[in-house]
Amino acid sequence: VYQAQIITIGHELLRGEIVNTNATYIAQELRKLGITVSSMSTLPDDRTAASDILRLILPEQGIVICTGGLGGTEDDVTRPIFSSVLHRKLVVDRDGEKHLRQWYTSRGRTFEDPDRMQASHPEGGTLLPNQVGLAFGFYVRDGERHIYALPGVPGEMKRMFHTSVVPQIESEGLFKRFGSGSYHYEILNFINIGEYSLDRIVHEIVDRHKGVVYGTRSSDGIVRVRLESSQEELSECIQEITCLAALQDNYLCRGEKNLEEVVGELLKTNNYTLSVAESCSGGLLAKLLTDVPGSSAYFLGGVVAYSNDAKKGLLGVGHKTLERFGAVSENVATEMALGALKRFSSDTAVAITGVAGPEGGNPQKPVGTVFLCLASRDGTVQVEKNQYLGDRQTVRLRSANKALFMLFRHVKQARRSGGKDQESGYDSEG
Amino acid sequence: VYQAQIITIGHELLRGEIVNTNATYIAQELRKLGITVSSMSTLPDDRTAASDILRLILPEQGIVICTGGLGGTEDDVTRPIFSSVLHRKLVVDRDGEKHLRQWYTSRGRTFEDPDRMQASHPEGGTLLPNQVGLAFGFYVRDGERHIYALPGVPGEMKRMFHTSVVPQIESEGLFKRFGSGSYHYEILNFINIGEYSLDRIVHEIVDRHKGVVYGTRSSDGIVRVRLESSQEELSECIQEITCLAALQDNYLCRGEKNLEEVVGELLKTNNYTLSVAESCSGGLLAKLLTDVPGSSAYFLGGVVAYSNDAKKGLLGVGHKTLERFGAVSENVATEMALGALKRFSSDTAVAITGVAGPEGGNPQKPVGTVFLCLASRDGTVQVEKNQYLGDRQTVRLRSANKALFMLFRHVKQARRSGGKDQESGYDSEG
Repeated sequence: VYQAQIITIGHELLRGEIVNTNATYIAQELRKLGITVSSMSTLPDDRTAASDILRLILPEQGIVICTGGLGGTEDDVTRPIFSSVLHRKLVVDRDGEKHLRQWYTSRGRTFEDPDRMQASHPEGGTLLPNQVGLAFGFYVRDGERHIYALPGVPGEMKRMFHTSVVPQIESEGLFKRFGSGSYHYEILNFINIGEYSLDRIVHEIVDRHKGVVYGTRSSDGIVRVRLESSQEELSECIQEITCLAALQDNYLCRGEKNLEEVVGELLKTNNYTLSVAESCSGGLLAKLLTDVPGSSAYFLGGVVAYSNDAKKGLLGVGHKTLERFGAVSENVATEMALGALKRFSSDTAVAITGVAGPEGGNPQKPVGTVFLCLASRDGTVQVEKNQYLGDRQTVRLRSANKALFMLFRHVKQARRSGGKDQESGYDSEG
Repeated sequence: VYQAQIITIGHELLRGEIVNTNATYIAQELRKLGITVSSMSTLPDDRTAASDILRLILPEQGIVICTGGLGGTEDDVTRPIFSSVLHRKLVVDRDGEKHLRQWYTSRGRTFEDPDRMQASHPEGGTLLPNQVGLAFGFYVRDGERHIYALPGVPGEMKRMFHTSVVPQIESEGLFKRFGSGSYHYEILNFINIGEYSLDRIVHEIVDRHKGVVYGTRSSDGIVRVRLESSQEELSECIQEITCLAALQDNYLCRGEKNLEEVVGELLKTNNYTLSVAESCSGGLLAKLLTDVPGSSAYFLGGVVAYSNDAKKGLLGVGHKTLERFGAVSENVATEMALGALKRFSSDTAVAITGVAGPEGGNPQKPVGTVFLCLASRDGTVQVEKNQYLGDRQTVRLRSANKALFMLFRHVKQARRSGGKDQESGYDSEG
């Protein structure tokens, strides 16, 4: 059954200059609405060539989402080609034109005739507002075809997709007509477990729930299980998985979330503050933590101690510790974490020191050797040694994710034993 | 003129589970042979649906590269759909079948009849060997159509593309027939200039060089000009652009490079060390700098001073400065940079403080207000105020890129005036 088609336009895609993330994003989002994409096409920004292909591939019915080619230059072919293939002339929206004129005038640029076309759409359609950029999108219904044209800039496309396309697909019941109608899915996030091991556990449970299918996907240190069902609710199956004793230390949360968001929420809810001390990860951990809006509520700051002098001067790592054990060692990781804890007066601190490569490895400490330490105001000091495979970026990312996991585990355990204020004891792993 | 078409097959693409990097890779590689891709399509792994679309889009002539769908299961539709659309029955290659049988047997697996089809191809074609995996690819010529079917696994696809496809395209002169024959290109990187302004300057120069075409592309604060020519060398045109006085402060380098790599090389060559002090960018600048292998040669470290206490305690920003001017101010940026310079004993330091949003803005300092300061051991103090548009990640990335640009400019200027040791004077902008 035909459901949806994605069309992307632009020479930068055909020349291989950028990867087509727009098509992937739209496919993902349509899937959440129960709509399956039947085909994707990328067309050139040449009017004749693009019209010729569009004429062949435009389906008789269904949802068509097109991105790119909406600006005002000769290269921007989306409005003309849909106009041509649908045999509907382009009409300029008056309010849209006014908006464009104001934009040009307020910036001291002359508003010329071709610029008006950025507020045009095939007759019978409507403009879609662009909250982020200048170019309007448009929607036009042609028989049983529902065509949405969105900008090519990912930020603008995403915003327009969610403010204009999704509400209409939902309110007009298009997701029932061209999709599975009802559709349930949930994503469960796990950490510190192999995809294969998790798959075996989940497989057994899902097998007992008729109509439920699942898939696993691993990225950035998190393994995600996606459960889907078109017939029934998933809650029972989810409950069985998330309450499984064997997964208690691995289950993170529901929904498509990053580890830094999960950890951030946990720190915030439990009123913990955090600082970090980084060597080989070079600021990546701090960057991830502060990617999260509102992170200033719990993240106080960090030191990127790339040189040994910085480790000594800014974190108080002992000269002798460095000399005796080397910068990549359990001892230096510990002194870095304790140094951050003290200097930032935070409740918790994590430190990372290792060999990210490609240079700097030796037989004792090959590339990928990373020491992590979590220290807490109550005296907790946890050290972990890891040996990662992969290139520089992989080693760095896996180190940062491991540090986030150590934080996650620590706050969860502390909460179980009565929260931050009741914490006590000293425990050392590694 | 029709030149090449890329077809990718698989539900994981249509479901948005993976980004279509195969299509991008093939487009890039074909371009190096002077062949332009006219369109790309992604088809489902349903035989009927995929055949229906293929029948519509398969061009009358040119190079067609297809990836995916070559295995032995029902989902693997590539062999059947080309067989159907080209009206050529599938034939099994004897040597190929023998190879498969050996592979199965040596692994203790039974070799069944459907497995033989993995060594099949449309009649008149040939198998393409797979050095990495099991599935054979195939090549079939149908009139003026040259069709190559490759595996979907990127590693297998790339290997087969280079060992089978490229040599044939070259030896049979297909790159002359469907491409421009010979092909030269170069990328020039610019910074701190609008795409539009750069375009006008480049346009004028390129206009005087017959056969040279160009395109501009802006991302991550760098504007890239791609010059192409099918007839002649580009060196003259490149020289004219890069030596233009008007672009002296904007031209970075040739080739596809990141700003952090360019700055890193410049710091290393000129023997400068660097430290950073970050507030709103939260470690992103340090992360970018340390993304570059070997960055420890010039990058000493940084402080992520997210809280005011951290700004005071770790960077020595004055309590009164914070109280009087606020954390987002020229004065605090300056004290942060001077603090980093002192604490890390580096030759240069850059500081970033601003409002990344979405919270934290006010009428005087709305979201996107960012102060940057570059301080150098010789007494240079340069401050810049910026007002960025965009979301949190955009503000952070543009701030970090601006800091990198300030470093680039400083080291270049210092070098012109005799290098690090001959530096003198004090200059303050902003």
